[in-house]
Amino acid sequence: MNNKNEISQVAVDALRPLGRLAFEGLGLAPNAAEQVAKVLVLADLFGLTTHGLSRIESYGARLESGGISAAAEPTIEPLAPAVARIDGRNAVGPLVGMAALEAGMDIARQFGISLVLARGSNHFGPVSPYSYLAAEQGFASIIGSNATTTIAPSGGSDARLGNSPLGFGVPNPDGNHFMLDMAMSVVARAKIRNALKRGESIPDSWATDASGKPTTDPAAALDGFLLPIGGHKGYGLALVVDLLAGLLSDAAYLTHVKSWVDAPDEPQNLGHFFILIDTARLGSVEWLKGRMIDFAAILHQSPAVDSGSPVIVPGEIELRKMQRYLQEGVPVDPATKALLDQYASRTA
Amino acid sequence: MNNKNEISQVAVDALRPLGRLAFEGLGLAPNAAEQVAKVLVLADLFGLTTHGLSRIESYGARLESGGISAAAEPTIEPLAPAVARIDGRNAVGPLVGMAALEAGMDIARQFGISLVLARGSNHFGPVSPYSYLAAEQGFASIIGSNATTTIAPSGGSDARLGNSPLGFGVPNPDGNHFMLDMAMSVVARAKIRNALKRGESIPDSWATDASGKPTTDPAAALDGFLLPIGGHKGYGLALVVDLLAGLLSDAAYLTHVKSWVDAPDEPQNLGHFFILIDTARLGSVEWLKGRMIDFAAILHQSPAVDSGSPVIVPGEIELRKMQRYLQEGVPVDPATKALLDQYASRTA
Repeated sequence: MNNKNEISQVAVDALRPLGRLAFEGLGLAPNAAEQVAKVLVLADLFGLTTHGLSRIESYGARLESGGISAAAEPTIEPLAPAVARIDGRNAVGPLVGMAALEAGMDIARQFGISLVLARGSNHFGPVSPYSYLAAEQGFASIIGSNATTTIAPSGGSDARLGNSPLGFGVPNPDGNHFMLDMAMSVVARAKIRNALKRGESIPDSWATDASGKPTTDPAAALDGFLLPIGGHKGYGLALVVDLLAGLLSDAAYLTHVKSWVDAPDEPQNLGHFFILIDTARLGSVEWLKGRMIDFAAILHQSPAVDSGSPVIVPGEIELRKMQRYLQEGVPVDPATKALLDQYASRTA
Repeated sequence: MNNKNEISQVAVDALRPLGRLAFEGLGLAPNAAEQVAKVLVLADLFGLTTHGLSRIESYGARLESGGISAAAEPTIEPLAPAVARIDGRNAVGPLVGMAALEAGMDIARQFGISLVLARGSNHFGPVSPYSYLAAEQGFASIIGSNATTTIAPSGGSDARLGNSPLGFGVPNPDGNHFMLDMAMSVVARAKIRNALKRGESIPDSWATDASGKPTTDPAAALDGFLLPIGGHKGYGLALVVDLLAGLLSDAAYLTHVKSWVDAPDEPQNLGHFFILIDTARLGSVEWLKGRMIDFAAILHQSPAVDSGSPVIVPGEIELRKMQRYLQEGVPVDPATKALLDQYASRTA
């Protein structure tokens, strides 16, 4: 038996049903709970612990307070032969995300490419689980979501845009899919908090103080705003994600997005976008596999600057972790395990 | 009359036909020459001088040596109802780009979204002229091209990927379109050359030396590789562009792309991708206009860190320059003017 304060290693065959039961305990229908658990368990399998089942803490609190609707069923509205809009009706984010992904794959199978926009949603987890599920079916993907505002515009001095996640996937039929899942900030806030704890200064490219000026003081940075990658480039990219995910989807955007921290019991009206491309239309499986293997090999063959750290291709870290955790079990922290057990016990 | 060493201000109504005649002088059919001039003159109107008609120098040399085919007519192959592939047949890049853009708009008008991949192409100019032409017709766009390899993979020590341009557009029916056109490097090489001239050091985030290690010495940086924005994030984004534009289009990718500098008389087999979304399918013109105006206003209203530099939205600089140059004439440097006149005189 595990000590209560230790990370558990839970077999994925046990973790998926536990996740499903926990979300059923929070009021979701069995199918809906299964979809949500599928996304969050994949996040844990990829090692994205902060975006995996640990989210049951915030999702659970908001489901309990009515900030997220447990009973909502997303609806789909066709807008053009290859375009649809999902109204999430304030359901749990990954449920809306999975509805968008599945609709997008259906449409792209018919037309070669599809766009599914989602409104009325909430935090949908990381992007890579969706990219992975799409890649497993042969779809390349461009997927993004807007987010609570935490970043100042370039040259501005208050939070007006979100650290919006943007992800890409390109399938390799041999399973080694390319997957890139990124937010637009140089670093996550956690990295600044760690510098503060250690009493270290930070590079001035990470964040600004509250007045919008770059700072090397982690305390000032935590009162200020994360800086996007590449200055105006990252600022522009974050705006692109919000334009596609929020503005064009008819969801909230920029400062119209409600903060789930400040107003947990109000709908956020987050938006997402899913662009899916059926690679089966572009060439044979062998053609794609040969090119994807060659693509990765060219990168791997670049002599490493540090001989202990060979060049990697985005997606490799996540897929290697998944292979390991499928064998050894998925690490689950004790607080998350306790919450999962508690909510799951309601269905007994 | 202008002094021969001064920048000319040429009225756009004179510059477009001059550009067309110059490309006719280089052997292009009148329609083809008109398309190429349209893209490059728009680049000059946006102030993107290095990617405008000045390119007649490199395009002209390669057309003359047969490295680019003057007579080639791009062909189009439908791959799925909403997906097509252009074979540029080694034509001038902007001609291939315009063929892809026009095919993409036709398809997106029918299906709501389209993907057009292009292979067998060459340098197609900057992205923003295509984003602008699409936005003027109500299409949002994601457009990219691969490029000659100049960047090392993260942690690698030789050039294996291109500084691939990636651009986005979202139309505002009032004409103030959102346009973001970016390459993945932190800075252009010209900025490092300028630091060297002034005897200044550079931030270690700009480039590495020849061994792949970050450097503050501009001379060492010019022997090394440009660094992408956000480290592994920009590296990943550059790979995404090459996967879509090169690998999935059946063009060359990574080190398979021939350098037009080292091998100017060989086909590069560059690739592009055009994803176009018909915003007319998403909501009314008034709906879109209201949201786009509000979106920009929210950003503009962020108090400026430097009161002389208010927050701007990507696309504003280019569109303001265009307004000015349409009135005052387009700046054309004397070397470019002389080449345009020289090639155009052949058609007399």
